[in-house]
Amino acid sequence: MIIREKPKLRVGLVGSGFMGKCHANAFRSVSGLFDLPLEPITDMLADISDEVARKNAVALGFRRSTSDWKALCTDPDIDVVAVTTPNALHEPIVMAALAEGKPVYCEKPLSNTLESALRMTEAAEMSGIVTMVGFNFLRNPMIRLARKIIESGEIGEVVSFRGRHAESYMSDPNVAHSFRTDPDGGGALADIGSHIISMGRYLLGPITHVLGQSQTIHKTRPIKLGKTERSPVLVDDATHALVTFENGVLGTIEANWAAVGRTMDLSWEITGTCGAIAFSQERMNELLFCKGTTGRATSGFTRIESGPTHPPYGSFCPAPGHHLGFNDLKVIEVAELVHAISGSANTGPDFREAYEVQKVVTRIAESCKEQIKKKV
Amino acid sequence: MIIREKPKLRVGLVGSGFMGKCHANAFRSVSGLFDLPLEPITDMLADISDEVARKNAVALGFRRSTSDWKALCTDPDIDVVAVTTPNALHEPIVMAALAEGKPVYCEKPLSNTLESALRMTEAAEMSGIVTMVGFNFLRNPMIRLARKIIESGEIGEVVSFRGRHAESYMSDPNVAHSFRTDPDGGGALADIGSHIISMGRYLLGPITHVLGQSQTIHKTRPIKLGKTERSPVLVDDATHALVTFENGVLGTIEANWAAVGRTMDLSWEITGTCGAIAFSQERMNELLFCKGTTGRATSGFTRIESGPTHPPYGSFCPAPGHHLGFNDLKVIEVAELVHAISGSANTGPDFREAYEVQKVVTRIAESCKEQIKKKV
Amino acid sequence: MIIREKPKLRVGLVGSGFMGKCHANAFRSVSGLFDLPLEPITDMLADISDEVARKNAVALGFRRSTSDWKALCTDPDIDVVAVTTPNALHEPIVMAALAEGKPVYCEKPLSNTLESALRMTEAAEMSGIVTMVGFNFLRNPMIRLARKIIESGEIGEVVSFRGRHAESYMSDPNVAHSFRTDPDGGGALADIGSHIISMGRYLLGPITHVLGQSQTIHKTRPIKLGKTERSPVLVDDATHALVTFENGVLGTIEANWAAVGRTMDLSWEITGTCGAIAFSQERMNELLFCKGTTGRATSGFTRIESGPTHPPYGSFCPAPGHHLGFNDLKVIEVAELVHAISGSANTGPDFREAYEVQKVVTRIAESCKEQIKKKV
Amino acid sequence: MIIREKPKLRVGLVGSGFMGKCHANAFRSVSGLFDLPLEPITDMLADISDEVARKNAVALGFRRSTSDWKALCTDPDIDVVAVTTPNALHEPIVMAALAEGKPVYCEKPLSNTLESALRMTEAAEMSGIVTMVGFNFLRNPMIRLARKIIESGEIGEVVSFRGRHAESYMSDPNVAHSFRTDPDGGGALADIGSHIISMGRYLLGPITHVLGQSQTIHKTRPIKLGKTERSPVLVDDATHALVTFENGVLGTIEANWAAVGRTMDLSWEITGTCGAIAFSQERMNELLFCKGTTGRATSGFTRIESGPTHPPYGSFCPAPGHHLGFNDLKVIEVAELVHAISGSANTGPDFREAYEVQKVVTRIAESCKEQIKKKV
Repeated sequence: MIIREKPKLRVGLVGSGFMGKCHANAFRSVSGLFDLPLEPITDMLADISDEVARKNAVALGFRRSTSDWKALCTDPDIDVVAVTTPNALHEPIVMAALAEGKPVYCEKPLSNTLESALRMTEAAEMSGIVTMVGFNFLRNPMIRLARKIIESGEIGEVVSFRGRHAESYMSDPNVAHSFRTDPDGGGALADIGSHIISMGRYLLGPITHVLGQSQTIHKTRPIKLGKTERSPVLVDDATHALVTFENGVLGTIEANWAAVGRTMDLSWEITGTCGAIAFSQERMNELLFCKGTTGRATSGFTRIESGPTHPPYGSFCPAPGHHLGFNDLKVIEVAELVHAISGSANTGPDFREAYEVQKVVTRIAESCKEQIKKKV
Repeated sequence: MIIREKPKLRVGLVGSGFMGKCHANAFRSVSGLFDLPLEPITDMLADISDEVARKNAVALGFRRSTSDWKALCTDPDIDVVAVTTPNALHEPIVMAALAEGKPVYCEKPLSNTLESALRMTEAAEMSGIVTMVGFNFLRNPMIRLARKIIESGEIGEVVSFRGRHAESYMSDPNVAHSFRTDPDGGGALADIGSHIISMGRYLLGPITHVLGQSQTIHKTRPIKLGKTERSPVLVDDATHALVTFENGVLGTIEANWAAVGRTMDLSWEITGTCGAIAFSQERMNELLFCKGTTGRATSGFTRIESGPTHPPYGSFCPAPGHHLGFNDLKVIEVAELVHAISGSANTGPDFREAYEVQKVVTRIAESCKEQIKKKV
Repeated sequence: MIIREKPKLRVGLVGSGFMGKCHANAFRSVSGLFDLPLEPITDMLADISDEVARKNAVALGFRRSTSDWKALCTDPDIDVVAVTTPNALHEPIVMAALAEGKPVYCEKPLSNTLESALRMTEAAEMSGIVTMVGFNFLRNPMIRLARKIIESGEIGEVVSFRGRHAESYMSDPNVAHSFRTDPDGGGALADIGSHIISMGRYLLGPITHVLGQSQTIHKTRPIKLGKTERSPVLVDDATHALVTFENGVLGTIEANWAAVGRTMDLSWEITGTCGAIAFSQERMNELLFCKGTTGRATSGFTRIESGPTHPPYGSFCPAPGHHLGFNDLKVIEVAELVHAISGSANTGPDFREAYEVQKVVTRIAESCKEQIKKKV
Repeated sequence: MIIREKPKLRVGLVGSGFMGKCHANAFRSVSGLFDLPLEPITDMLADISDEVARKNAVALGFRRSTSDWKALCTDPDIDVVAVTTPNALHEPIVMAALAEGKPVYCEKPLSNTLESALRMTEAAEMSGIVTMVGFNFLRNPMIRLARKIIESGEIGEVVSFRGRHAESYMSDPNVAHSFRTDPDGGGALADIGSHIISMGRYLLGPITHVLGQSQTIHKTRPIKLGKTERSPVLVDDATHALVTFENGVLGTIEANWAAVGRTMDLSWEITGTCGAIAFSQERMNELLFCKGTTGRATSGFTRIESGPTHPPYGSFCPAPGHHLGFNDLKVIEVAELVHAISGSANTGPDFREAYEVQKVVTRIAESCKEQIKKKV
């Protein structure tokens, strides 16, 4: 007996690198894990050449492939466009999809320049099209729990934020130049600082003031992979900033891609007047929670392990402590995208939110060049 | 352009509970993550009734459904049979699939009795059919790394093993009777002790001698979910055992499903003459590794985080520290299954290995009843 | 103005090695930290020769020295005798002190044989003299807190104990024979297993039944420090035991002095029907406490840090989190000793308790030789 | 036989609160733990009144007491003056002691104003008298090891510093005003920020530039202990700063005394071009050390536990992993003081170093008031 099928959501994906594969997997998995109104189908993949596109379409389970992203955007059988190309190429693809009235799911950062990001944001808002940007770390049930704890007032009024995203993938001076070190949109602050900024905003609201300092640790890098010739690096390897949130919370943010020993220290500690919570992506299935009352004999940080009491963990596993992984966060994001496309409220982050994150990045970068430190 | 597709592996799944959903997800995801010779298709789902089967087939992405597992086993379009029913129902399904010459992928434990497990094992071996049993925790790249470290001799000759699987899902005395507390094959030792035993065998080889003690913490439980009437519990809530491995390693094993505070403490410490390694599934993306030489100023346990240097992590993500989750382990297992069905060496655990694990479980359980402790 | 002084407690110490120095420091410090009825004075030190005794008396701050421990025991100006000699020499010294009616403070184990320990115990009890044995790890405020939590019923009825004392000081096969490997009272179980046994008894009460297995990892060692000639090792390097407490708690105990990577893993996890506590001496200023109720979104183990709410931490520091160290535990022990000598209730462990610990050690050792494991 | 005694160092202590008791204990213990050229004697204690002084002299083991600190400073039998009074009272006492040519051991901060600190520093330097200031956290063997690792070049060129001192003793808004909230020298930055600044300087050298932001979380506090009337708080509860070291290292520093959940998070992470080290006083017997080479399968942070390979740990205990505590750090400091008084090189921190720390504190505080953040 052939069973009844759900209505389909035909996905067109542009780009099939690191995040492209991650998108493809999420679209394939999501309907077996979540009860969604639409079933995503990995339909068409566009990439740099026919050959690459065809090869990766086979590998990632797409039915069709093309080297022409415009064709993908205008194809009448494509219902949603996902964009995972290098950042500088986002805008034309996104604009083409929006012009067709298609929902757009774009990897972060939305663009390499703030102006470009604003153009996309306004185009989407003008047409009322659903958009989403891939800040997948926000999708962690532990992060949702953190926000719930903050909103509940259990830690009192929040007063401090100490955030960081530190990895080490650029710590070797022989890692070559790439889009990451392109002065137009590259650097540690833009690449990973955006994650901790988006998380700070998700948990505590808008950031209104910043003061930054940045450093370029490795002054030159090989001009490209496999070459020995070197050229100057014009972006930051690490940036630290003092920040103020709209609600008065003060804190610091660090972005560092040369942090030897750190592979994924997207971490923060949030302190309230009568409690605190702390998190690191290094242990993404744990949240530390202290419910104040200093001086009691049994107070301290409680290590909460993820489980079915932390939605949507239960969509992946009915038993606690079994762990979600990085790719599962993308699946959750795609589930939210499908709900938004189906007419539910968009839980974001949409283009506007991505633009706001990028504005903070830009202001910190500007501040790094302007301010003068006090001499001791 | 419609792209060329790979040959398919049509999957028939019997059972769609906790592990059934996990199987379905793995079969759907695997070919987008691994480069496999066959592409699994979630074809037919069998469950207890037409209605349940149809509903879950839709939810889990199967093309067909049935309430007749025999029909599934004999269906000529089914290439492999996956079994995730309650343990006591494994044998007839497995035997029917083997009779058709079809590879069988069965959840652990292989059966509720040792005799039954042996019958299945011998039937499979007689016919030379590929079998695999779902001890998915073995699939963790950190566990592979552990075995590689042991085999490399970096920790010297292994001398001690301290293993445990502790969770708390039965810690509440009002959790009702179920197949888990069925005297025929139930209990903490059989349910989760089998995981630490299989892991001990994977890392250190056969266990030859045991001595156990067990306890039933909650003497009665509600006769079934939602009832207040209670009846006696005849299985163990916790079992501890002294064990000897064939290679002379001594150690202990604990199985405990009433370990309040523990959600997934499948953990061990393995000590060698000049090093040690330690692991807990609570932090499944980490391995602790100490390379001996006591007395040096900078020695100690190094916390290794999972990454692309630990195959097959890289099939999921090219960047280190991004974390695999529980469901990813099942995907790795299914990739191994597909390779074995395609003619590669079976990396196991096959039915024989599952039978050996079950034999250790059985001998410990027998020992718990026989031995007499020394009075202090 | 010369201030009024407290009555003195003149201490005679026999032995000035590792623990001798630790005793001396504790006696010197205690009265500045605790408000005691008597002020200990480090009066006389006895050691193996006049020269050694004199040298160490200067180093450790004693007023007098002697090579004749009998003279120390009978000296009318000595109020209490502390014994930190090798174990086999305890009995004559202790007996001499008891014969003089002097309180005795003896390092663990009380003796090298159970019979000898019993003789000392009975002699002390017959005369009603205050005795104390140096199980200093019990003095940790975190351990007192653990007992308080257990007694309060906050973790329900205790059901399991998983204890261990693992260090690595004998992990190198070239560590030579010494009193530690003397078949008469030596071995890992006697040397450090006694600590985890005493702690188990302190927290959960008497152990009534045991079943052990032991191993000698390094079969030979240099006959003495600096020699290359080797002779067989006749004691255990590691012992594991199944144990039953009088109150029905089941568990395991491990003693291991060849545990590479471990410097002080005197650790345990105690599980109750609705909570759990866990501790490791590796982080002696922390106690992990989980107050059950599985399934709540914010439950888990809370890391409690030591502070003034955990007596007698406040005697050392008025601020929490500042950490006690190993030597501070000895100071607490000495404070308890002074109170007992002054007529307060003896909080122990006294000779009787030390004898009971040694009996458990002995029974486990006997069991290791007797029992036959079940063949798998 | 009465043994030969060492030459004495007669100590006069002014102040007997928290740190006074800590000083007294250190002076009493040190000669039994370290082999020193002089033996400190706790001779005279000065405090606010005759009664308090006498009572505390008995409690802390001093031979004499006085309410007149001037008499103490000029007493010919006092060889060294230790000062643990409230900060604003340091200068006259210190100046009086220096005028007598006596070495001075003063608690941090050296004074409540930078000018006062400079006067004391210059007075001491003019006369060539030995001075020391109580930054006892620097005395931790793990901190010495950290400096040794940095100096060895094992982590390459240092590039980043992320430092913090967070506690929670002022997190309760009902903690009353005290010297800590005195606008003249009080506040979190001055009180505990000075510790992380001194540690940063100890490990990485001078700080040349700063930019700060500060916050007063609790705007009013009870005017004094036991009162309900409240008055405004004019000092910071938390301050964050961007800092530049002379050697080009960039980083951040946080001081926070309202950090709920933190009792002693004096912590830092130092990143070099090919390695990293990290530390928290919460686990003061551990140092985390990563020796770069990203991409190896077994790299990561190694948890080093303190032991005899980390001088002067061995003065306290010959076995590793047994833990030093807070008071032991003071003992080490006093040992260094005695060596300096005996003519060895002064390992500091002396008054000059304390002044430099205070200058950084002052410049950060000034910066907090001056700078203007960039609007997002």
